[in-house]
Amino acid sequence: MGPVGSDQVWQSSARLADGREIIYFDESPGTGRAAIGDRRDLRPAAPGPGASGQQPGGPAASGLRWDALAGEWVVVAAQRQDRTFLPPTEQCPLCPSRDGRLTEIPAPDYDVVVFENRFPSLRGASGSPAAAWQDELTSPPLPVPGGPPETGGVPGRPAFGRCEVVVFTSDHEGSFAGLTPRRARTVLEAWTDRTTSLTAMTGIEQVYCFENRGEEIGVTLHHPHGQIYGFPFVTPRTRAMISQAKEHAAAGRGNLFDELVAGELAAGTRVVSRNEYWCAFVPAAARWPYEVLLFPAQRVATMPELSEPARAAFCDLYLDVLRRLDALFGLPMPYIAAWHQAPASDEFARREFGLHLQLFSIRRAPGKLKYLAGTESGMGVWIGDVLPEEAADRLRGAR
Amino acid sequence: MGPVGSDQVWQSSARLADGREIIYFDESPGTGRAAIGDRRDLRPAAPGPGASGQQPGGPAASGLRWDALAGEWVVVAAQRQDRTFLPPTEQCPLCPSRDGRLTEIPAPDYDVVVFENRFPSLRGASGSPAAAWQDELTSPPLPVPGGPPETGGVPGRPAFGRCEVVVFTSDHEGSFAGLTPRRARTVLEAWTDRTTSLTAMTGIEQVYCFENRGEEIGVTLHHPHGQIYGFPFVTPRTRAMISQAKEHAAAGRGNLFDELVAGELAAGTRVVSRNEYWCAFVPAAARWPYEVLLFPAQRVATMPELSEPARAAFCDLYLDVLRRLDALFGLPMPYIAAWHQAPASDEFARREFGLHLQLFSIRRAPGKLKYLAGTESGMGVWIGDVLPEEAADRLRGAR
Repeated sequence: MGPVGSDQVWQSSARLADGREIIYFDESPGTGRAAIGDRRDLRPAAPGPGASGQQPGGPAASGLRWDALAGEWVVVAAQRQDRTFLPPTEQCPLCPSRDGRLTEIPAPDYDVVVFENRFPSLRGASGSPAAAWQDELTSPPLPVPGGPPETGGVPGRPAFGRCEVVVFTSDHEGSFAGLTPRRARTVLEAWTDRTTSLTAMTGIEQVYCFENRGEEIGVTLHHPHGQIYGFPFVTPRTRAMISQAKEHAAAGRGNLFDELVAGELAAGTRVVSRNEYWCAFVPAAARWPYEVLLFPAQRVATMPELSEPARAAFCDLYLDVLRRLDALFGLPMPYIAAWHQAPASDEFARREFGLHLQLFSIRRAPGKLKYLAGTESGMGVWIGDVLPEEAADRLRGAR
Repeated sequence: MGPVGSDQVWQSSARLADGREIIYFDESPGTGRAAIGDRRDLRPAAPGPGASGQQPGGPAASGLRWDALAGEWVVVAAQRQDRTFLPPTEQCPLCPSRDGRLTEIPAPDYDVVVFENRFPSLRGASGSPAAAWQDELTSPPLPVPGGPPETGGVPGRPAFGRCEVVVFTSDHEGSFAGLTPRRARTVLEAWTDRTTSLTAMTGIEQVYCFENRGEEIGVTLHHPHGQIYGFPFVTPRTRAMISQAKEHAAAGRGNLFDELVAGELAAGTRVVSRNEYWCAFVPAAARWPYEVLLFPAQRVATMPELSEPARAAFCDLYLDVLRRLDALFGLPMPYIAAWHQAPASDEFARREFGLHLQLFSIRRAPGKLKYLAGTESGMGVWIGDVLPEEAADRLRGAR
C-alpha cells in the first residue's frame, strides 16, 4: 500500500548526461523536475564490468573475489580511490543545480532524489534484460585446483550489482534527525520503491538501504544522504540471521525475531522508545557503544510489506530515536543506519525474516570512539565498553 | 622444540601486588628479575566473574552475551571504560620500574615480559583447578523461551577467560619492526609458551596472540606491546575457517590451507617476500588496504608445533615485512597483527588447520584511512580500495 492523502509522493525519472538513472520523489505534483536536462559534459558511464572483471577500456580495477578461508565474497573497487572527498560546501555534488553551478541533480530544487552512484562499487544491474555475462555471475564459485591462478583476483566474478545515492533534502546543512515526519515518510517511500525496483532486476539477490553519517565513520560528503546497494549475493550478516532463524524454527521454538522482540518488550530494561506499531531497543548483546534496533510490532520480511499505519509510525519513532542520539552528548552523533530485510530468492526468509533497522554509533563518550582492533577485526569477537542496559537508560533520558 | 644456542630463553615468574601473574622471558641467565617484589599498594584483583556475570562486590559490568541473530558471543566489559588512556611517557605503566617510579613491571629492566592484564575483558582462568561456575560456562547456551528475561544481559555467561599483556622491549620509543631478530625470537618463544600454558587451562578453547599498533586503531598505550587472549569459545573467524576447510576436505579437494599457499606461490603476483621456511603474500580477496598473510612452508596447526628452523626463519621474514609496511608511506604504519591457530579441542583443526599470521593496516594513503561503514559493519561485506596485486607490488618495492 502506498502513501495516501497528505503523505502522497509523486515520482518521475530521467537520465543524467552519462546515462545514469535519476528519480525524483516529490511531495507535490507537477514540479516538472524530470524534464530538466543534465547540461554537463560527462563521458558515458560504463554499462557494466566485463566477464573477466575488466573495466571496459580500463585495467582490472574492480571485481568480486572469493575469500576461501572465510567463505565470503569481497568487493575490490580500486577505482573508487579517486571519488569526491569532503568537497567544500560550494562544490557539493548533492546540492541542487543553481546559479549556473551544475551538480549531480539537474533540478534547481527537490524533495527526495535517488540516482545511480557515479563511483559505484557494483554496477551493471538494470531493468533491462540480463546481459550474457550474468549467467556466469550466478553460477557457483569456480573450483580452483591448485589455488588462485595467475590472472588477477580469480576465483572472482564481475562486480555486478547496483549502487544508488538517496538525497534526503536539498538543505546542505540538514540531517535526517532534522527532517519533518512528512519528509521522513517520503524517504521511506523512496527506500520502498527502490527495494521493489532493484529486487526485480535480474541478478540482484539482496537490496540494502543504509545511511553513513559523520566524518568519524569515513563519510566523504556532508550533504544529508544515504545509499542503496543491490548485491548479487546474500550478505554474510543476512546469511547468519537466516541460518539462526532456521535453526530456531527447526528446534521447534517458533520465529526467532518474534521471540526476540517479545522478550525485549517483556523485559523492558533495554527499551528506548515505542509506539503502537514500532519499538526501539538496545539489543542485549549490543556490539557498539550505542546501538538500537527498530522492529515493527507486526513482523514483515521487507519494506514494501509494511502497512500504512506502520509506515507513519516508523517515521515518528525513528526521528525520536535519532534526536535522542544527537542529544546524548549534545553533539551530532556519527552513526550507521542499516535496513535488514529478506533477500529476494530465499523462500524461508521471504516468510520468516523480521525486517528491522539497526542504528548504531561508534562514539562511546565525547572525544572517544570505539575502534575495531585485534579481537574484532582479527577474530570477529566484539568487546563492548557500555553496558546495554545503561545505554538504554541514557537514551531514555536524552531528549 | 625450544630455542637452542644463542636463541636460548630463560623464564621465571612471580606475582604482582594484586595477585596477577608476571612472567619474564630473559635472554641471559641469572637476572633475578622475578625475585624483585611489586612494592605498589594494589587491591587484590578479582579472581573471576560470578556465576551471574556480577563482578565480586560490584554491579554487573561484565559478561558474555549471546547474540541470537548472529549466533555469536559478544563480550561486555563496561569496567574497561576507565582503563589507562594514552598516558604521557613518564607515566607509562609498561616501562620498567626505575628511579622510584613503580610500574606494572617491578624489575628495573627486562627483555620480554608477560603479565595478566589489569583491565581484562575476560578473567578467571588460571592453572589451578576449575571453579564450580566453569561447569555452567561450558554448558550450551540456555534455551530462552520468551526471549531475554528481565535480569541484565541473559542469555549470558560470566566473562571467563584470560587476558595477558606481552611487552616486547623496555625501550618505550621502540617498535616491533625495530627489534633485533634475537628479540623477535624471544617474543615468539613467549607467544609459544603462553599458547601452551593457556591451552592447558580448564575452560580455555582458543589462544589468540595479537598486536594492535597505532593510535589510528585505538591503541591506548604507545609502549611496544601485544596482547594474548584465552577465549572460552572458538571465535567466529576461526569457526568460519574450520568450516571452510572441512567443506573443502569433504569435497575431496584436500587441505584448504595447503592449496591456498601453493596457489599463491605458483601465481607469484601477490607474493611480497619469502624464504625457505615461510612466505608472505597479499591474499587475493584482501579486505584491508594493505594485508599480508605469513604462512610456514610446512603446515602446522599451532605455534608450539613450529620447527626450530621455521622459528628462526619466521623472525627474519616478519621483520622484513614489517619494515616494508613502515617504508611504504615513510610513516609508522598503524596495523593489527593476528595469529590464527587451531583451537584446543577441535580434532579436525588440530590436524588440518594452517597456522598463519595475518598482518593488516587500515591506512590506504598518507592521511587517508579505511573506515568500516554501512556495507562492512552493517552487512559484513568488505569493499577494498586497493587492488591486491598493486598492494603486493608496492610492498615488494618498499624497503
